[in-house]
Amino acid sequence: MAQNITPRAQDYSKWYHDVIEAAELASYSPVRGCMVIRPNGYAIWEAIQSYLDKRFKELGHKNAYFPLFIPESFLRKEAQHVEGFAPECAVVTHGGGEKLEEPLVVRPTSETIIGHMYSEWVRSWRDLPILINQWANVVRWELRTRLFLRTSEFLWQEGHTAHETEEEAMEETLRILDLYKEFAQDFLAIPVLAGEKTESERFPGAVHTYSIEGMMTDGKALQMGTSHMLGQNFARAFQIRFEGKDRQLHYAWTTSWGVSTRLIGALVMVHSDDDGLCLPWRVAPVKVAIVPIYKTEEEKTKVTEFSIQILENICGKSEVERARRLAERTQILECFWDEERRQKVILDLRENMRPGEKFFYWEQRGVPLHLEIGPRDVAQNQVIVKDRLTRKKEAVLCSALSRDEIESRGERLTKALFERALKFRDEHMVRVESYDELKKVLLAKHGFVVCNFKPSREVEAKIKEETKATVRVILGDASDKKCIVTGEKGAKEVVFAIAY
Amino acid sequence: MAQNITPRAQDYSKWYHDVIEAAELASYSPVRGCMVIRPNGYAIWEAIQSYLDKRFKELGHKNAYFPLFIPESFLRKEAQHVEGFAPECAVVTHGGGEKLEEPLVVRPTSETIIGHMYSEWVRSWRDLPILINQWANVVRWELRTRLFLRTSEFLWQEGHTAHETEEEAMEETLRILDLYKEFAQDFLAIPVLAGEKTESERFPGAVHTYSIEGMMTDGKALQMGTSHMLGQNFARAFQIRFEGKDRQLHYAWTTSWGVSTRLIGALVMVHSDDDGLCLPWRVAPVKVAIVPIYKTEEEKTKVTEFSIQILENICGKSEVERARRLAERTQILECFWDEERRQKVILDLRENMRPGEKFFYWEQRGVPLHLEIGPRDVAQNQVIVKDRLTRKKEAVLCSALSRDEIESRGERLTKALFERALKFRDEHMVRVESYDELKKVLLAKHGFVVCNFKPSREVEAKIKEETKATVRVILGDASDKKCIVTGEKGAKEVVFAIAY
Repeated sequence: MAQNITPRAQDYSKWYHDVIEAAELASYSPVRGCMVIRPNGYAIWEAIQSYLDKRFKELGHKNAYFPLFIPESFLRKEAQHVEGFAPECAVVTHGGGEKLEEPLVVRPTSETIIGHMYSEWVRSWRDLPILINQWANVVRWELRTRLFLRTSEFLWQEGHTAHETEEEAMEETLRILDLYKEFAQDFLAIPVLAGEKTESERFPGAVHTYSIEGMMTDGKALQMGTSHMLGQNFARAFQIRFEGKDRQLHYAWTTSWGVSTRLIGALVMVHSDDDGLCLPWRVAPVKVAIVPIYKTEEEKTKVTEFSIQILENICGKSEVERARRLAERTQILECFWDEERRQKVILDLRENMRPGEKFFYWEQRGVPLHLEIGPRDVAQNQVIVKDRLTRKKEAVLCSALSRDEIESRGERLTKALFERALKFRDEHMVRVESYDELKKVLLAKHGFVVCNFKPSREVEAKIKEETKATVRVILGDASDKKCIVTGEKGAKEVVFAIAY
Repeated sequence: MAQNITPRAQDYSKWYHDVIEAAELASYSPVRGCMVIRPNGYAIWEAIQSYLDKRFKELGHKNAYFPLFIPESFLRKEAQHVEGFAPECAVVTHGGGEKLEEPLVVRPTSETIIGHMYSEWVRSWRDLPILINQWANVVRWELRTRLFLRTSEFLWQEGHTAHETEEEAMEETLRILDLYKEFAQDFLAIPVLAGEKTESERFPGAVHTYSIEGMMTDGKALQMGTSHMLGQNFARAFQIRFEGKDRQLHYAWTTSWGVSTRLIGALVMVHSDDDGLCLPWRVAPVKVAIVPIYKTEEEKTKVTEFSIQILENICGKSEVERARRLAERTQILECFWDEERRQKVILDLRENMRPGEKFFYWEQRGVPLHLEIGPRDVAQNQVIVKDRLTRKKEAVLCSALSRDEIESRGERLTKALFERALKFRDEHMVRVESYDELKKVLLAKHGFVVCNFKPSREVEAKIKEETKATVRVILGDASDKKCIVTGEKGAKEVVFAIAY
């Protein structure tokens, strides 16, 4: 059944959780800080995985799997790394009924254990580059949690590469940053700023950290993916060395990069509305929902038959037959749209719900396209097509309702979602010329604040204390300009925002 | 480079590890009992995942994700469950720098945490069945480990379903058992016996446990997948209750079932030989290896061009271009065979290796089909095709070398592997009529021993002590026959074997 959703304007945080609950994306579990990703939420993650996995592989990466547990001593081998992650770790002290000699940390990230393995695998320059990705769960103990955005356990992919030269490692770092940006914008329909982080926001142990930052509809920033140039820091800590073409021993240059299930939170916050979830076409687990409308038994028979025929045209006869066999109880025919069995077209034949309720139900679940079929449509051999965003109804002749036509309507919706999000972001991105102005803007409304600023740990800490805002990314150089806070020369053009 | 492999007849266990190492499937990690699944091994797991995931989904299952951590108290709610799993658990006692109020167990399996969530989700018979699967890592502390077969952490899928009636739950349990059997035989080319386990081999908390059992080439049995009818045991422990059509409260009937990365160990033991890994067509990450043969520079140019053309015919021009851009350093062109980017055709252009070494290299990695291309083949517009099993060389005209032709050769290889494994199993499966005979057979050689036996915890424990063998599956009823051990009536036809 459809559920009540708190209006976004009334309580953003409650609205966020209501959308997730109504769409059945995730729930809190009885384990503090850990979430259950329910089938509707997990299917979004599978769509993300499928897209990214192919892209990584096309660039030559291979998947592998490294242990969940990391010896505590490994973390300590890179000084900044242990400082950054030790306070967030879950620690296994007992195994098989006995106390362990050395406690094991549940991986918060895998640079250390992977660094150790690479040191065993790399001997010569011929063994490089190593291009490996891992799809895994990680644990970072959190006190204040929020579904998808901040939980003690989450799912992610972590790429770990090792290269012969600094230049190659830098290229890889930026290649992945580009890929993430393209993925966020084209696949998730979320406009992002991509750039380097300042030192105080850097990944513990990295030389350069880059990220993509999206703007949520409350004006806050969300870091949606990071790509780190690790220099030789982890290679030195774990002795990843190789004999170069010059017959000398060298340390390798490594990178790491990742995106996580928090992206599902971004989809909720950027595209959804007071009627619930709204999803771009390519990431939507259910692409099309077909709802028949009838009053009499005679109409019911006709409309149902016609609806099944429409479904057969879209998904094929044998696929509809398979779905019918399974739907005896649920009365919802779930047909696969794609070969990989990841995305669906559904026909909702439930008898205990009115058509309006059904539309509401599928709207709350973010289904991009809705087909309405009534007796008049059967007579005219047409269906009424409606998208989740504009909700404009349009009659389309069955002969014109090809898969390509459906797909192109879906892509149009995606484009409209992107444009709407871009417009929102641009409206909430202002340039300021003084620190007073920066504070005023951040106090009045959230959003991205662009200014000339000379990055420094101390000054950034002070600004964070006073405004809650941090530098999200460096947009470019402004070295001939003065820092709006300290007045010093050598500034950068940066974006400040309050972030999740 | 190709590595030395200990002959199987000389030391089976060393042979097993050598095959894995030569094929770079996995390594031990610095964390006791945990393995690293290397890209070549993980790609096999991805093929298995892809096949099973589609099949599960076609039967109406959906994927979800449940927490890694389980409160210790949850395990205790089902008496047999805690008895079975508590001694194998890894326990987290500290998180975020503080001692936890209640220790958390790293999931050894997820019946308890999932049971808890189902109790929150199920209210009415309309909410049933719940058909959920999870791809996840699990931890069972092991003292004696063996790559893939027995490690403290492994990867698996675990299905968890809840039903309105006992009959439906039983149907689901057996449907999955059938699916597993078909998967093992058709996809992995491993013949299996499917049947119920005796009480002493039952999953802790189950009412019935079914499994598929394969025979390894040392005559030992390997349990390759299990499907459990859990009755109402977990529903009672976790209060999974629903209002039935009769308006009364009922406990649900649940099932669980799984296969794990140990299947990769089965592939190694069943199909491989003294030259290394041998893989059936559909599970092979690299399907075809193309190796050019030449002596002069002129021959090299001609043969290389021709080889690239062959590759283009198989994988498409743009795909080969993509692979060429990436292969500058490795000199191995890796082209994707399939849309999902899971399986490859490779062209080995390395200049520092002789053709013989290359064939050996790809044989050790289990590649099913090898194409050899020399100057004479270019002249005759043909390639020499060889399969990993028979190694018979056959000249095939390029015009006849379609994807369908390649595929059908691959499937023929799969069939031959299955037939060979079936023949081996049948030759090592004997029927005995007395306990003395059973002991003699098991002592002389391993294998499957069929007999009439009346299952009993005590008698099975005694037999295990004396022979190391356990009842692997019950094949059928033999209630009019006497047990060969106790002479009692009410026997079953069972299979005894020594198992991994």
